[in-house]
Formats: sequence, C-alpha cells, structure tokens
Amino acid sequence: MADLEVLDALPTKQIWDGVVERVVEGERMGLAIVELEPGAVVPEHRHDNEQLGFVISGSVTFTLGGETKQLGPGGTWRILGGTPHEVVAGPEGAVVADIFAPPRADWSELPAPPAREPLWPV
Amino acid sequence: MADLEVLDALPTKQIWDGVVERVVEGERMGLAIVELEPGAVVPEHRHDNEQLGFVISGSVTFTLGGETKQLGPGGTWRILGGTPHEVVAGPEGAVVADIFAPPRADWSELPAPPAREPLWPV
Repeated sequence: MADLEVLDALPTKQIWDGVVERVVEGERMGLAIVELEPGAVVPEHRHDNEQLGFVISGSVTFTLGGETKQLGPGGTWRILGGTPHEVVAGPEGAVVADIFAPPRADWSELPAPPAREPLWPV
Repeated sequence: MADLEVLDALPTKQIWDGVVERVVEGERMGLAIVELEPGAVVPEHRHDNEQLGFVISGSVTFTLGGETKQLGPGGTWRILGGTPHEVVAGPEGAVVADIFAPPRADWSELPAPPAREPLWPV
C-alpha cells in the first residue's frame, strides 16, 4: 500500500455479515472505511482498542454506554477501550469511517470478500 | 462532549489560515473533521503524531515523502510520525478527516474561530 492511495486500491475485508471495510494500516492506529448493507447488524461487542468514527453517508442507529442515537452524515462516536457498543444500519445502508488505536491485530486473518467497487464516493 | 455527537456540536478550532476543524478527542487519538477554503495552504510541517486521513468532499494536492498526488473523495494518506507533508486545497476547497495518534496536545490552546455551520454534510 502506498502512503497516498485511492479508496478502491485499499485491501478489503469482510468484518460481519453485510459489513465490508477498506483499511489504511498505520503503526499506532488503523483507519477503516466501512460499508454496511441496509439493516446490517453489528451485534454488541467490545475490544480493548479505542475507536473513534463518524457517518459518511446513510444512517446508523448506534448504542453505546447505555445511550442509543440515530446518526446521519457527520454523526460521530467515541468508544474508549472496553466499552460495549452495537450498530444497526438504516434502511438505505451506511458508509462510515472507523479508526482503531492500536490497530485491530485480530483482523489480520479476516477473509477478503468478492471484489467490488466502493459504494462511496458515488 | 457526549460519546455520540453531531458534527456541529463539536468544539471548533482554527488550525491554519483558511483551515478550521471540529474535533472528537479520545485518549489515544484525536479525530478532526477539517474544512479547507479554496486554495488554502497547509505548509510543509512534521509532528511526532502519526496521522491517517482521507478526503470527504472536494479535492487536495498532497505532498508526502517525495510524492505529490491530487486526491478527491476517498483519497487517503498515511503519515508515520515525523514525516514532512504539505497540503493545498483545490479550487472548490475540501473537507477531510484527519486522525492523530497520540492526540495533538499542541492544539489545546488553539483559538476558536467565529461560529459557523459545517460546510459538510451539505
């Protein structure tokens, strides 16, 4: 991967059912552009990695620390390490950015989905 | 700041001439949604913080590690700590995401610009 790279040249990984990401891997963090199909569910989970992110397009319903909020473009989250969180994509799906520090070492073995064009930018 | 927050509720900072950011501050990293006016220049600089980012809207000309590339929406960068880099916004300006690990402690004293609506999402 080059240090300046277009989105569709990034490695692609399948994270959950209906959830695919393209990743920029740094040393201290990893940046994922994540596509969620309409209604895709990321069930409640937690990880030691800190996670920050925001909605690029579409919408999600985010549950974090006992709060549930619907977020459209520009809606942000801050998930300190170990905090349970859950996401459900809206009826039109969503594209979001997620950043993890440290990088998600547990993602190194994830499979690549069939090749496809990014859903965003349109 | 709440852990789930809309963009225009985030703290705003003036980083360079013609460059304003809204920030989600984590413990291990900071996420900035950065607005660059048309033709705004971020002169060559470097910092120990690792920086990953991508273009949300508009375009920038990015120079990093001896490479110069024009990037539109979805164009990404990976700047390991200490690497010089420079950015010039395109004729329509740009909105980009920049993430820094660790957070930019040197930004804590930056002034807030006059209140204004986010340029993105439109």
